[in-house]
Amino acid sequence: MPVVGFGLWKVPRPQCADTVYNALKAGYRLLDGAGDYGNEKEAGEGLARAIKDGIVKREEVFVTSKLWNTYHQKERAKELAKHQLELWGIEYFDLYLIHFPISLEDVAIKDKYPPEWWGLDGKVHPTKVPIRETWEALEEIADAGLAKNIGVSNFQGSLLVDLLRYARIEPSVLQVELHPYLAQKKLVALTKELGIAITAYSSLGPQSYLELGAHHSVPGLLSHNTVTSIAEATGKSPAQVLLRWAVQQGLAVIPKSNNHDRLLSNLQVTEFTLSDEQVTALDALDINLRMNDPQDIHPALGIFA
Amino acid sequence: MPVVGFGLWKVPRPQCADTVYNALKAGYRLLDGAGDYGNEKEAGEGLARAIKDGIVKREEVFVTSKLWNTYHQKERAKELAKHQLELWGIEYFDLYLIHFPISLEDVAIKDKYPPEWWGLDGKVHPTKVPIRETWEALEEIADAGLAKNIGVSNFQGSLLVDLLRYARIEPSVLQVELHPYLAQKKLVALTKELGIAITAYSSLGPQSYLELGAHHSVPGLLSHNTVTSIAEATGKSPAQVLLRWAVQQGLAVIPKSNNHDRLLSNLQVTEFTLSDEQVTALDALDINLRMNDPQDIHPALGIFA
Repeated sequence: MPVVGFGLWKVPRPQCADTVYNALKAGYRLLDGAGDYGNEKEAGEGLARAIKDGIVKREEVFVTSKLWNTYHQKERAKELAKHQLELWGIEYFDLYLIHFPISLEDVAIKDKYPPEWWGLDGKVHPTKVPIRETWEALEEIADAGLAKNIGVSNFQGSLLVDLLRYARIEPSVLQVELHPYLAQKKLVALTKELGIAITAYSSLGPQSYLELGAHHSVPGLLSHNTVTSIAEATGKSPAQVLLRWAVQQGLAVIPKSNNHDRLLSNLQVTEFTLSDEQVTALDALDINLRMNDPQDIHPALGIFA
Repeated sequence: MPVVGFGLWKVPRPQCADTVYNALKAGYRLLDGAGDYGNEKEAGEGLARAIKDGIVKREEVFVTSKLWNTYHQKERAKELAKHQLELWGIEYFDLYLIHFPISLEDVAIKDKYPPEWWGLDGKVHPTKVPIRETWEALEEIADAGLAKNIGVSNFQGSLLVDLLRYARIEPSVLQVELHPYLAQKKLVALTKELGIAITAYSSLGPQSYLELGAHHSVPGLLSHNTVTSIAEATGKSPAQVLLRWAVQQGLAVIPKSNNHDRLLSNLQVTEFTLSDEQVTALDALDINLRMNDPQDIHPALGIFA
């Protein structure tokens, strides 16, 4: 799995095909998508155009997607994976993840796609599909060749450990929010012990959530003194410093950018090294600040409690 | 379930019977034990003596015990519960908890009891018994009348939510480490939403772990300025302030004391109220500091990661 991938969350649908095409042209070889991002068809178009133009072959690109909360039942999960592959216009995903350890009531594809968090009545409807059932569905998706690897996202340690007790196919990857404000050292140590790779999301900190209207009393990481001073000292951008901090500890990252220069520079985080002092200074920013918490949407969705 | 119980962790075996007797005489009506505490026989002797002397009737005392990690397999769990009831000399537990969401290899009762964390070779041996199997064992223990209520301990939110998806009998109680340094506001909110009571352990903070040789850079809560100044202002002891902080937010507590005066005063935390300002000051001490983390014992036991 490439260490630096291109994240498709919040890439607007109208420019998504071009952005994916340009990302592949710039050298990205991992595309991190999800049904919930609402841009899989356009991402697939960008990929198809890049293949057609000889920029990449399908087998050179690592395509990740994720199963949404309303499809946790065993019979529905495979249906969704097939639908997502159709949208992408590809035969298989390289990695398919359970997006959240949350099951919500069905919303039919014809009624609303992507279904997001709310039912057609505007309310959140948790249902009781055990993670084991959903994991068995992902194992069947892997068996059927629809996904080469399977994994999970937004899992805490105890739930991951429990999944490993019954998994026939072990998860390859755990994708989680992880940045200096939420360093998750215990989770990183656990997954190393278990042999599961971590993909860090929101590596650049609260920025994406502030754009969505979230308010926090802390400065954004990109403008934090500690980050900007390390950026100056190394001659890199604050984003590169934050991505390097993750990559240097063995994590994969999936920054997105709708700006071509940033898209390029985000990829260049494997050729420089942060000093121990710089890593320690970034580690010291940890305040256990999680931006993406479904418990903010509905009180029963306390998956990070 | 009584709001204030008497915790049996670290009550030394030689004085345990007397301590339990005196706790019941002082007015305690909940005894919080566990196989792992190694003093169930002596606790049962103290209870039997109190019943014989007419201090309490069995049905007036709420006895909690816990299933140890080496007994998570369905057929072994009931065997252990019966063994623990024999040690106590009682017919049923009022509450029986999964002590940790961790399963370890068998150690026979005749070889080592309580078995603690390590096998006979001195090493930790995790095994793959899913929590679902262990919960079904507890349901059978409840069906058989060996426990009036069942619950869990040391569970994170996501694992608790997953358990509720398949539980035939829902857990009544979640027992967790919780004090102002580890306030767990999200977990408290989640369990309120789910209708599960929380019993907070280690309410007095790091003290018990410091006695075990742990070192931390923070002051003990009992001597923390914020706590001692509220104690002075209210005319209560620091321990009473810490217990009241928990009780006032609807949590049960299980302090232990080997000292008779403290044992009495710990019980007196329902007759005074902390002001909003005092609660806010205590809430502000939260630094997500967990003292009891099995990941410190073995890197694969990341149940709080």
